[in-house]
Amino acid sequence: MAYQKVTQKDIDFLISITAADRVYSGDQINDDFTHDEMQEYGKFMPEVVIEAISTEEVSQIMKHAHANNIPVTPRGSGTGLCGGAVAIHGGIMLSLTKMNKIIEIDEENLMGTVQAGVLLMEFIKAVTEKGLFYPPDPGEKSATIGGNVMTNAGGMRAVKYGVTRDYVRGMKIVLANGEILETGGKVIKNSSGYSIKDMMVGSEGTLGIATEITVRLLPLPKKAVSLLVPFGTLDQCIETVPHILRSRSTPTAVEFMQRETIENAEEHLGKQFPDKSSDAYLLLSFDGNSTEEIEGIYDEVAQLCLSKGALDVFISNTQERHESIWSTRGAFLEAIKGSTPEGLDECDVVVPKNRVADFVKFCAELNKEYGVRIRQFGHAGDGNLHVYCCKDQLSDDEWKPKVEAIMQRMYDKAIELEGQVSGEHGIGHAKVGFLGESVGAPVMNILEGVKKAFDPKNILNPGKVVNRF
Amino acid sequence: MAYQKVTQKDIDFLISITAADRVYSGDQINDDFTHDEMQEYGKFMPEVVIEAISTEEVSQIMKHAHANNIPVTPRGSGTGLCGGAVAIHGGIMLSLTKMNKIIEIDEENLMGTVQAGVLLMEFIKAVTEKGLFYPPDPGEKSATIGGNVMTNAGGMRAVKYGVTRDYVRGMKIVLANGEILETGGKVIKNSSGYSIKDMMVGSEGTLGIATEITVRLLPLPKKAVSLLVPFGTLDQCIETVPHILRSRSTPTAVEFMQRETIENAEEHLGKQFPDKSSDAYLLLSFDGNSTEEIEGIYDEVAQLCLSKGALDVFISNTQERHESIWSTRGAFLEAIKGSTPEGLDECDVVVPKNRVADFVKFCAELNKEYGVRIRQFGHAGDGNLHVYCCKDQLSDDEWKPKVEAIMQRMYDKAIELEGQVSGEHGIGHAKVGFLGESVGAPVMNILEGVKKAFDPKNILNPGKVVNRF
Repeated sequence: MAYQKVTQKDIDFLISITAADRVYSGDQINDDFTHDEMQEYGKFMPEVVIEAISTEEVSQIMKHAHANNIPVTPRGSGTGLCGGAVAIHGGIMLSLTKMNKIIEIDEENLMGTVQAGVLLMEFIKAVTEKGLFYPPDPGEKSATIGGNVMTNAGGMRAVKYGVTRDYVRGMKIVLANGEILETGGKVIKNSSGYSIKDMMVGSEGTLGIATEITVRLLPLPKKAVSLLVPFGTLDQCIETVPHILRSRSTPTAVEFMQRETIENAEEHLGKQFPDKSSDAYLLLSFDGNSTEEIEGIYDEVAQLCLSKGALDVFISNTQERHESIWSTRGAFLEAIKGSTPEGLDECDVVVPKNRVADFVKFCAELNKEYGVRIRQFGHAGDGNLHVYCCKDQLSDDEWKPKVEAIMQRMYDKAIELEGQVSGEHGIGHAKVGFLGESVGAPVMNILEGVKKAFDPKNILNPGKVVNRF
Repeated sequence: MAYQKVTQKDIDFLISITAADRVYSGDQINDDFTHDEMQEYGKFMPEVVIEAISTEEVSQIMKHAHANNIPVTPRGSGTGLCGGAVAIHGGIMLSLTKMNKIIEIDEENLMGTVQAGVLLMEFIKAVTEKGLFYPPDPGEKSATIGGNVMTNAGGMRAVKYGVTRDYVRGMKIVLANGEILETGGKVIKNSSGYSIKDMMVGSEGTLGIATEITVRLLPLPKKAVSLLVPFGTLDQCIETVPHILRSRSTPTAVEFMQRETIENAEEHLGKQFPDKSSDAYLLLSFDGNSTEEIEGIYDEVAQLCLSKGALDVFISNTQERHESIWSTRGAFLEAIKGSTPEGLDECDVVVPKNRVADFVKFCAELNKEYGVRIRQFGHAGDGNLHVYCCKDQLSDDEWKPKVEAIMQRMYDKAIELEGQVSGEHGIGHAKVGFLGESVGAPVMNILEGVKKAFDPKNILNPGKVVNRF
């Protein structure tokens, strides 16, 4: 791929169609733009960073890039974990964070329309104020809605409510050639041709740039309760999950956590977790419209947990207690990162729910076998696990071959268990090889054909998801 | 497109890879295979019909068709309404109805895996027996699951539970060139590359042939209640719906029906509808795990309806009453067809929920303006309307220009209201023009590019959804 380098003439033109104080080049470019949350996957300097403020600007930028064969990397908050929003081929980095308007919260149709750069936490706040509910709940609340859509972010509540894809209903998209199109809309059903919005969801900015997004909302459940359940052993803990899911008591979330990760979080947050009795916990939440409705459900689950070896069941039915436990859960990633400043690598596989125990135990074995500290936590209720290999005090020479071997074995194991490479973080550039191995050549050929249909010159976020066509 | 004609040599080969008693040609081909439920869109004779019984057979048939440039039309029960499963270019009709095994109902992962030819009613029966629930509820229960997936069938329960797409988790697919691939699986989350399963859903057999499908299941709700609500006027009836949806009382289904359609159904079924007091009704259902849980919800909705002009609220809380009302609703399509044996045309638009009243009133005006009898009913709760123009005693010369004008005006109106051409029936060959008009050239170019990525020789169900590339 022979891309054109960005020249001063390009920069002058890009300023002429945007504004001088939103175009950065050379030393003006903040180091943050060279990486996402995983600096371990390399640092790459874009040639120019532009903060767009409208779909029309994005369109004009793409027209220029297309005509001049300049690669463009769209970017939201840069909170990704696979190197999806880094400019590995240089060129233009197109930041959408200034496109942060909530365009409409339509209470009649229960739909919200936002610019792509609206932060998840801002959107949650706005819909909650109107008594509405946007169910997707990825841990990183400072991510943009655009980023969530582009990785099909999942989060805690997938067990009951599904993932981002299930809520996206429409989009305004700028194509690689600068054309603007709208797809879907405020409609609940749609069988009008291949679903472009579903190709865009999870495409990590490689097929088009979503500048506006319409999502479905629900009425806000009136009550929520969490259960914190310590178990005697990790096995008992994990193996209780399928029993919970088979009961008719649909929890909103089912997370598992281990003592050692909790301790990292306690240190990170500077506050104590409310229980110290066990090495392995399930954390469940339930929501509904009345205390009675939820009580019946969580009582049943509490009894079930106790019958499967739970040591106790702590009920958090106040907002304060609820938040105390979930803030610990929410701090896991940062806490683990903090515990291994020399570096780490992560894996985000998803397996069928009844294979979670197998995968968790497999990782514990890898920990012993390679002498690398492995921390894991995740969404036991939906089979999506986050596993972190910590470099700690290992030298680069020790670390590199070990982590490569561990990652390969984890992905192989996920495939063996009929799982997938990524549950919610995506592929970026870091996982392209693992994706290719897991899905095989016929599927990669089709993905590459789809990429070509959208972006024949391969200028939109090249090298991510697929790396050629 | 210059396709090869099917020769005796082809037929002999096709028999050699399948079986003589599952391959039909010439006079052996049943007339049913020349059309779907809308004979109005033309009758087309395939050159050969093959009933496949395995993925391996489908793969071998496709390899032969691909090598010899023979078009292939996959087909389930043939209950479509847009000419999606008819062989408009002749060639091979590939029936999947003998691939009717329920492969697995996995109670641990709450997933069901079926061959594509399993009938919806058979699958519902099988999962219900295990206390499980497959929420998609298209009216035509003799359709195949494969057909449901290929049109992204919606049905009554979309208001609360979403559509077929939301339940499909994995597929075994035979590509146009005969390659077999698997995509997705028993996983709840997936961010592993562009979603092939979401391209396949709603693709009407033009991108690949799904031979096995894995869908998500839910625990079966223990209780269900229906409300039949007569209103003084159609306006009051339709305009109450957004108020219901804005309340926190999520119904499972919200249908609207009019006296004249009910009368057609009474005649068709030979039994009386339980109420005659009104011209316009809402039919709602609610489900949950306890009587108490549902009671609180439907009481609130009943009060709301009464405050908006409902004449009464009839509660059906026994299975018998429930089925009596819903069987009337289920008979609408057949009843309307029966009332106009000379022919009809249909439109399946979807609009934002708060535009349903506008569209319904618009159709009533068209009725008067053109002097063509128009019957409509539909899913008021999700904005998906089914509108039928009845030929009745009109001559062909009177009928044709009128129905063409009415259809054009209905689709134009749907687009004006920010709706889509099809909510759940699909595009087939009958609606390709309307799709092109509604989405515009840039979108059609992409759809054609996607088609090319999957089927570069354009042999898979050519002329459907897109008609060139």
